[in-house]
Amino acid sequence: MLKAAICTIGDEILIGQVLDTNSREISKSLNEIGVKTETMVSVGDDCGKIVQSLETLLESHDIVLVTGGLGPTRDDMTKKALAKISGASRWRTDREQERLIISMLDRRGIAHTPDNLAQALVPDSCEVILNRRGMAPITVYRLSGGRFTGNHVLYSLPGVPHEAVGALPDIMDDIRRHFSLSDIYHRTLVTFGIPESIMSDMLSGWESSLPEDMKLAYLPDQAIGLRLRLSIYGGRHDEEERRIRREFGKLEPIIGDAAYGWENDTLESVIGNMLKEAGMTVSAAESCTGGRISELMTSIAGCSDYYLGSVTSYANSVKTGVLGVRKETIDRFGAVSEECVREMAEGIKRITGSDFSVATSGIAGPGGGTDEKPVGTVWIGIASPDRTIARKLMFYGDRKRNIVNFASNALNLLRLETARFLKVSHILSID
Amino acid sequence: MLKAAICTIGDEILIGQVLDTNSREISKSLNEIGVKTETMVSVGDDCGKIVQSLETLLESHDIVLVTGGLGPTRDDMTKKALAKISGASRWRTDREQERLIISMLDRRGIAHTPDNLAQALVPDSCEVILNRRGMAPITVYRLSGGRFTGNHVLYSLPGVPHEAVGALPDIMDDIRRHFSLSDIYHRTLVTFGIPESIMSDMLSGWESSLPEDMKLAYLPDQAIGLRLRLSIYGGRHDEEERRIRREFGKLEPIIGDAAYGWENDTLESVIGNMLKEAGMTVSAAESCTGGRISELMTSIAGCSDYYLGSVTSYANSVKTGVLGVRKETIDRFGAVSEECVREMAEGIKRITGSDFSVATSGIAGPGGGTDEKPVGTVWIGIASPDRTIARKLMFYGDRKRNIVNFASNALNLLRLETARFLKVSHILSID
Repeated sequence: MLKAAICTIGDEILIGQVLDTNSREISKSLNEIGVKTETMVSVGDDCGKIVQSLETLLESHDIVLVTGGLGPTRDDMTKKALAKISGASRWRTDREQERLIISMLDRRGIAHTPDNLAQALVPDSCEVILNRRGMAPITVYRLSGGRFTGNHVLYSLPGVPHEAVGALPDIMDDIRRHFSLSDIYHRTLVTFGIPESIMSDMLSGWESSLPEDMKLAYLPDQAIGLRLRLSIYGGRHDEEERRIRREFGKLEPIIGDAAYGWENDTLESVIGNMLKEAGMTVSAAESCTGGRISELMTSIAGCSDYYLGSVTSYANSVKTGVLGVRKETIDRFGAVSEECVREMAEGIKRITGSDFSVATSGIAGPGGGTDEKPVGTVWIGIASPDRTIARKLMFYGDRKRNIVNFASNALNLLRLETARFLKVSHILSID
Repeated sequence: MLKAAICTIGDEILIGQVLDTNSREISKSLNEIGVKTETMVSVGDDCGKIVQSLETLLESHDIVLVTGGLGPTRDDMTKKALAKISGASRWRTDREQERLIISMLDRRGIAHTPDNLAQALVPDSCEVILNRRGMAPITVYRLSGGRFTGNHVLYSLPGVPHEAVGALPDIMDDIRRHFSLSDIYHRTLVTFGIPESIMSDMLSGWESSLPEDMKLAYLPDQAIGLRLRLSIYGGRHDEEERRIRREFGKLEPIIGDAAYGWENDTLESVIGNMLKEAGMTVSAAESCTGGRISELMTSIAGCSDYYLGSVTSYANSVKTGVLGVRKETIDRFGAVSEECVREMAEGIKRITGSDFSVATSGIAGPGGGTDEKPVGTVWIGIASPDRTIARKLMFYGDRKRNIVNFASNALNLLRLETARFLKVSHILSID
């Protein structure tokens, strides 16, 4: 298997000012075409260090991808280091990238400064992949012979995240062309509600009976749930797809409706798809989740087709005044109670006219807990066209983690109730 | 200056499934106590590779911090690698961590399995820092003599982000004690509304007149704003504090009310403090921001003192039915208009009975843009006890970036209006 290394350059990463997201996006793309990222390194803005790190990485990896941090100054330093490593003899202007730079400057009404135009200058030792999203071109150095045993390729990407990510399809194509790669096939099943440790016990029999060429990975995420990924390297695409589906199908009797989606599905996207298909709508009444459920629902482009809106009723006066929760309910049972969360769910459904609704009331902490209702307690209510249900759950995190858990579990309950009412089959039984 | 390296372990990082946020948090903490992170590396789940990487890092760094990915299986492998590097002869149970594990399991009603209890097992070559947030202890290896020239310290942190971050104060204390570090003094001024490139032009004169031992850093953040940090290494604490305040004070005539806080202040925390002090309240009416403003306001513990709640009026029927926006207003001017956002702000203020309110209506994209109102357009309305104002702003990002920018700029306008009404002085003039 081809081995790759990713090197990010920039003092701002090393002092913790900037979170490096490029490495993750690059490794994801490499993984998808069957190239294994063996190493990720971040080094500072020091030409000597950059040269040394890249040369060390080139010794033990077939492919090295370097991203240049942010800003023209940074890119310059990386370019000089790359010229040195690749034994460039002079600089040339890449005319196509120069044309792109000029048209970009003209479009934004910015003057043609030497600094801007110099971005089209590249060492004569590289090939260029055009950067259509920014000014600095992607440069490719094919290194073999001399100090290098075997073929090595070094790609230099811009540091600006959307430019780096935008360049990845072209770079993956180049890698595929340059090294004739064997196929890889992945499929990811998304589940919610079963913790990783319990899931791995539940699946131990199934996992040990998997064909030898199939690999299972657990990908836990607090908000999305636990994803299970099966991978096969090599082989024919359509056949592998069938084989992997067959193995996942065997999970139906084991995990049932905990499985809710494939690949990049999320609770909010799956709920959205069911509602859109049915032409139905949803709303939310949030107390302890403070707006997070609404923010998740509206993170999906096109959500206005089924999401009507929400009320965050942080104060009890808003629970009674806007949502119509009865004052006696709060006085008698408290705001964190089955009775209150049911009235919240029914109230928001009534005032927005939605078909479904979700409501939360709980204690995120750090204050507000009692012996009877400790921090981490949440009541979730779901109103469907035919019934209203409520569930109590307990979590043990800090305020932030509790809010995330409250919201995701509320969405999961909404997903289950929506699927029940709409008679949507378990995804494992229909796939 | 002491040199540190950070090593994250985990296949899930190398295949791009998990974004490594621990390295950033660790390097931030190191930077604050004056330790320079020279290298960050990610390696896979392979004991031989872990040992080799850590030994290489230890050769050229005084301090190496390793975080172990996620899950008990992972932590075990790291532990074995560390035992090998440190020449451990046997394993021992750390009784204090064991007690913590047992009380954690009991509190959650989980059985005491050998897997859980084994997390308290550590090599006899290490010291233990208790992990109060999870089961795996933080282990410290002090390495000197033999293969090591000089003193090196290796810290092993849990991979779970909140456990790793939670352990940092104890680890920084340990580093400070172990290597008598010279003092470092930082002070960070938080600003909003002036982009970094314009700010650096505005401050160039001030920056070049700073005393030689004072260093300025720009820390931009889309949601919080642009933070300016001044640092002094060495010297006496109280005197440095006075000197840095004096320099920051000179910024008052230059950036005025763009400066809004110190250190970890955020727009939502500063607004909360002003309202709490004044005994006043606020509410929100959100359209395009979909709940984000409400989520930010309720991220502050104790917000129930001043935050009453919000309505996310995604559908126009909720704008008219719940918030009381007039149908004619939407028909005539559209939902993304000055008129609509004013009525939204006044509506939520009326139905919640709050003193202030903030409202947003805009086009986050990708759909819904027109020539007249392109994607990225937002109207922000603020209702105060004495007046209602509205502002139009334009952004050029994708859906996610637009929503973040809309919400932060709405909070900034709310901050300015709250300070105006309450006659709160600019923070630079009172500090």
